[in-house]
Amino acid sequence: MTDEMGDLRGKEIKVLDQGFIRLVDYMGSDDAIVEAARVSYGIGTKKKREDRGLIRYLLRHQHTTPFEMVEFKFHVKLPIFVARQWIRHRTANVNEYSGRYSVMEDQFYVPALSEIKGQSTTNRQGRDECEVDPELAKTFVTFLNATHRSLYDEYLRFVDAGIAREIARIGLPLSLYTQWYWKIDLHNLFHFLKLRLDEHAQAEIREYANAMSQMVKSVVPVAWEAFEDYQLKSLAFSALELRYLQNQLLDLDLSDEALVAIGLSKGEAGEFREKLNKIGKLS
Amino acid sequence: MTDEMGDLRGKEIKVLDQGFIRLVDYMGSDDAIVEAARVSYGIGTKKKREDRGLIRYLLRHQHTTPFEMVEFKFHVKLPIFVARQWIRHRTANVNEYSGRYSVMEDQFYVPALSEIKGQSTTNRQGRDECEVDPELAKTFVTFLNATHRSLYDEYLRFVDAGIAREIARIGLPLSLYTQWYWKIDLHNLFHFLKLRLDEHAQAEIREYANAMSQMVKSVVPVAWEAFEDYQLKSLAFSALELRYLQNQLLDLDLSDEALVAIGLSKGEAGEFREKLNKIGKLS
Amino acid sequence: MTDEMGDLRGKEIKVLDQGFIRLVDYMGSDDAIVEAARVSYGIGTKKKREDRGLIRYLLRHQHTTPFEMVEFKFHVKLPIFVARQWIRHRTANVNEYSGRYSVMEDQFYVPALSEIKGQSTTNRQGRDECEVDPELAKTFVTFLNATHRSLYDEYLRFVDAGIAREIARIGLPLSLYTQWYWKIDLHNLFHFLKLRLDEHAQAEIREYANAMSQMVKSVVPVAWEAFEDYQLKSLAFSALELRYLQNQLLDLDLSDEALVAIGLSKGEAGEFREKLNKIGKLS
Amino acid sequence: MTDEMGDLRGKEIKVLDQGFIRLVDYMGSDDAIVEAARVSYGIGTKKKREDRGLIRYLLRHQHTTPFEMVEFKFHVKLPIFVARQWIRHRTANVNEYSGRYSVMEDQFYVPALSEIKGQSTTNRQGRDECEVDPELAKTFVTFLNATHRSLYDEYLRFVDAGIAREIARIGLPLSLYTQWYWKIDLHNLFHFLKLRLDEHAQAEIREYANAMSQMVKSVVPVAWEAFEDYQLKSLAFSALELRYLQNQLLDLDLSDEALVAIGLSKGEAGEFREKLNKIGKLS
Repeated sequence: MTDEMGDLRGKEIKVLDQGFIRLVDYMGSDDAIVEAARVSYGIGTKKKREDRGLIRYLLRHQHTTPFEMVEFKFHVKLPIFVARQWIRHRTANVNEYSGRYSVMEDQFYVPALSEIKGQSTTNRQGRDECEVDPELAKTFVTFLNATHRSLYDEYLRFVDAGIAREIARIGLPLSLYTQWYWKIDLHNLFHFLKLRLDEHAQAEIREYANAMSQMVKSVVPVAWEAFEDYQLKSLAFSALELRYLQNQLLDLDLSDEALVAIGLSKGEAGEFREKLNKIGKLS
Repeated sequence: MTDEMGDLRGKEIKVLDQGFIRLVDYMGSDDAIVEAARVSYGIGTKKKREDRGLIRYLLRHQHTTPFEMVEFKFHVKLPIFVARQWIRHRTANVNEYSGRYSVMEDQFYVPALSEIKGQSTTNRQGRDECEVDPELAKTFVTFLNATHRSLYDEYLRFVDAGIAREIARIGLPLSLYTQWYWKIDLHNLFHFLKLRLDEHAQAEIREYANAMSQMVKSVVPVAWEAFEDYQLKSLAFSALELRYLQNQLLDLDLSDEALVAIGLSKGEAGEFREKLNKIGKLS
Repeated sequence: MTDEMGDLRGKEIKVLDQGFIRLVDYMGSDDAIVEAARVSYGIGTKKKREDRGLIRYLLRHQHTTPFEMVEFKFHVKLPIFVARQWIRHRTANVNEYSGRYSVMEDQFYVPALSEIKGQSTTNRQGRDECEVDPELAKTFVTFLNATHRSLYDEYLRFVDAGIAREIARIGLPLSLYTQWYWKIDLHNLFHFLKLRLDEHAQAEIREYANAMSQMVKSVVPVAWEAFEDYQLKSLAFSALELRYLQNQLLDLDLSDEALVAIGLSKGEAGEFREKLNKIGKLS
Repeated sequence: MTDEMGDLRGKEIKVLDQGFIRLVDYMGSDDAIVEAARVSYGIGTKKKREDRGLIRYLLRHQHTTPFEMVEFKFHVKLPIFVARQWIRHRTANVNEYSGRYSVMEDQFYVPALSEIKGQSTTNRQGRDECEVDPELAKTFVTFLNATHRSLYDEYLRFVDAGIAREIARIGLPLSLYTQWYWKIDLHNLFHFLKLRLDEHAQAEIREYANAMSQMVKSVVPVAWEAFEDYQLKSLAFSALELRYLQNQLLDLDLSDEALVAIGLSKGEAGEFREKLNKIGKLS
């Protein structure tokens, strides 16, 4: 858990056509999680668990408070329609560029042709896997570019003519870029990333989530690994589903050897067995 | 504190040209504030304070938890640029119309000519008191109407052609109406209203705050009166300013009679004297 | 989803030896969840999903905002050591009895003999399944009763002698009962209940969670059923574990008929298949 | 705003008889506040305000988000009755020592004789200015010491005999020390300090607030000065009170010279005049 990756402050990743995410500052690391968790154990702790095991244990058992002890601050440039999804995560601090104080910059998001997809037929919320007709996509991009140009020119014209900025801006489109400082603790950031890395999230915000993931992974590599294993790539089955899976899982080899062989610690193996036993009790 | 105003659920007030605010539901009243506050007093309370006095006392002393025991739920239709200011109040619950699931409706905000004002010269954030040249205002309104028409037509055309709704919408302007359910407790609502009724708030969100104020005042008339007196129309002076005011305030008549005559209770009069004494100690 | 259970306001359940939980008020029902969710669908919604299906869908997909639209307010009497665990849930409103304003009442929690168990050997946090030696348990109860009597007598004596209540109380034990009003929305209440109904939660707070569950189930029966199926009785498997389970799950009958037979809707069956397909992609 | 005070991480201040507060880590400084605020101004900002003026402006106008960009993490050892007041501040992260996992340490708070005061007669909440009879105070301290000794001995005895820690502890008193990591942003910390430095706060928690103030003042000296001037030592007058003060304030010299002489900037002088003008409009 040493800081061998060097200081990551100031690291910036380009996102979308004109956006970025920059890691302004952070407080804490994997060590800070462990340190906070050990406050709970005090003199009653006989043997020091290994740090990685402890972090995995905490995450697995939803002991989330030690993860709240790590804090990240990002500078993000993002289109307004993305900002509107992002801001729904309330447990964070935000300081946004103000279109009342300042003239908005002439920057708008235009999706790459390959990102212009059809309405999903199976998922009412999202876009399809397959792209739309290339001609349609081009028409759309041409439309966006022309709209951006003319709306921004009019905006500037009205601002120059003296109309208050807060009113002049209301004709600008949702593709307009804004920017903000955004600060959040690791526990809430994991929650944000779980939702925004998901395939149901809109592709544009997923790009930001991906960029952020790289940064977070560098700052807290051990916590990130646990997050991937236990949250991001985990699957939950409902009571009904578990009852149906039950019979299939009866004759699994649940010996320590078998389970340690797939990468579980002995403690983790024990908890896995316990979990499968619970399924047996459900029926 | 009786419910003589009848049930206010369902009451709707028109706001701006096409928006509204509707009181969907609420839980509690002035009585609920008093009831929660009395939990703190228990058997140690000898005499029952009068309810109005208690509510004023709580608000004056920032004992805010009893006000959190009252909850309001509103249905609001509002332009997106207003929604973006509104959502910054994080301690609330929101359920918004989704432009990913559904086709956006053809409704856009166009300000009345009288609302199109110049950029304020004293306040970098806001608009001026005086209106801009009427011709300029008309040009702006004409521009907005034409823009709304053409952008919405294009939006529909691209949606109909099969482009995913979540992408097709990004060319729509910030004047587009959205709607949401918004739920908040009375303490946080007072905070929202204090900021959004302020003359520095943008005129459009102030209209919503005004409409909401009428509803809140009807549901909790006594708390509202205290809020007006102690928060909305109160003024705070800094330590530096107080030192300067000090001499002017030396020979005030602070007798109970004088203070009761202006509407303070005896307890409130005592606290007022105490406050003025503090100024004396500051120098 | 009719209100056939009658009004539940005022319903009280005894908890522990002298505690209780009382449902003071609530706002909303299963209908309120559906109503809020439908705001998201607007004119784009072609066919009205069945309400139960919609609620299950929302919970399954962590669309949690509609659940935040229902609010509960409880009056709870509980020992201080339980209150200290409870208060860690921050997204709630609390108004507690004050030992500074009022004399604490003479009420202390003494566990039933059957609840006095040994330190768990497998779970460093909790108590054992099996009871301790009956004599030891009796000694402990005798000790508690004597302690409560003498500490409370001393407390009263010092308060009567004129020592400030806020100081006199510091010798009182954690078994002392306090009381509060506690208000929370359904989404956060489900989170509280998931953690506090868990077998790792301390038995005493679990009793309160159980009592609350009965009340919540009566107010929002459909949401409760979904909560039980998808959260309370669900199990999550980590990426490592899923890889191990994978082979066992290959030859499951995943036909609509088979899955509808176990109680899934067709939509739910489709999502179950999708989930199992993901496991295949993990390896 | 340079970091001439050296790194303050690790600085510890003793509080009460056995407690302490230690500054574990912090993120940001006065510069971070300014940096975040400037995001709002962007290209529209013509001239760079002076940093101190900007910070004062932000605080005066309740532009609180830039202050949220600074974060503090403390390690605190404190009696449980203090912890119960402290935890009511919900917008913070906490990781507390667990009496379920670990044996509680043998440390209890015993107030100094000079701190044992009578119940206030004017303020139902607090203790008096004057001390109680010295004999009474001594009796109380003797009682506490004896109680602590015997309760802790019994606690250990029951733990050693095998009773689960989570149950054995319930006889321990509220004077028992616990400890936690506590993380909070500067805006919320200011709010905490305003309430807990107040003369109505219990003396014990005020000691912690005082110690913390020293640390905060060193990390963000400019913000601290503004906090003192505009919040800590400011006074708010209600509408009723302002109407009464009105006449006294008519003939104040409000020229720039007079106001700059008392330490206001010209901008601040202008806002002061504006505020006094508002009083005139109230009548």
